[in-house]
Amino acid sequence: MIKRIAHVGIATQSIAAAREFYNCLGLELNSVEGVEDQKVKVAILEVGDSAIELIEATQEDSLIKRFIDKRGPGLHHMTLEVDNLEEQLAFLREKGIKLIDEKPRQGAEGSLIAFVHPDSTGGVLIELSQPAPEGLS
Amino acid sequence: MIKRIAHVGIATQSIAAAREFYNCLGLELNSVEGVEDQKVKVAILEVGDSAIELIEATQEDSLIKRFIDKRGPGLHHMTLEVDNLEEQLAFLREKGIKLIDEKPRQGAEGSLIAFVHPDSTGGVLIELSQPAPEGLS
Repeated sequence: MIKRIAHVGIATQSIAAAREFYNCLGLELNSVEGVEDQKVKVAILEVGDSAIELIEATQEDSLIKRFIDKRGPGLHHMTLEVDNLEEQLAFLREKGIKLIDEKPRQGAEGSLIAFVHPDSTGGVLIELSQPAPEGLS
Repeated sequence: MIKRIAHVGIATQSIAAAREFYNCLGLELNSVEGVEDQKVKVAILEVGDSAIELIEATQEDSLIKRFIDKRGPGLHHMTLEVDNLEEQLAFLREKGIKLIDEKPRQGAEGSLIAFVHPDSTGGVLIELSQPAPEGLS
């Protein structure tokens, strides 16, 4: 079951430049963290029960760099929170939905994540995320 | 002040086709409504405190049709709920942010809306929305 839009991921050329606009909306970012295996750094801006994730490539061969080279900066993905990722993936597979990640993998703060292929979602890169059990994040 | 992500707008070639994927996630759409001045029809899928808005062009010269012709279907805009749109627009203008709508205009269900230009947001089409006062929607 989908619980909420966990965050909207935005590909930026520079988190520092992008945050200026969001500051004008009164949205402040807490911290900027590196995600080494993705070759990006990310900044989270909390918005109500969801968040905006600003993403900046840290290396030339980052997927985010390729995305921006092709399409320009902008909306990149949408992350939906599920209560049981393993079950959700099995169900999607059964329905013939194309998955980028066949199995859950580790995300930030103890969460489990998996991406669904845009071919099956009408062009939207969708990340499914199951939060860490209480007390384990 | 920004209260929440009101919705994420997704450009689709066909709402009927796109909804099949979201149905697999357990998200059902209530109704599909025409928005004649935009030359689109839209379907709302509620997700937690936010929503996903599926958009389909109804005419050849719809902006959504042009968006899809250029970039393909996918993430189109993000709508943030503000408590006072007039004040927020004045503040953004003062900060030199480029606006598509200089003044609030009528949105769905008695809301007021305005779009911010992607030139000032790092490539993201952002809609600001102020809900109708209680009892007036």
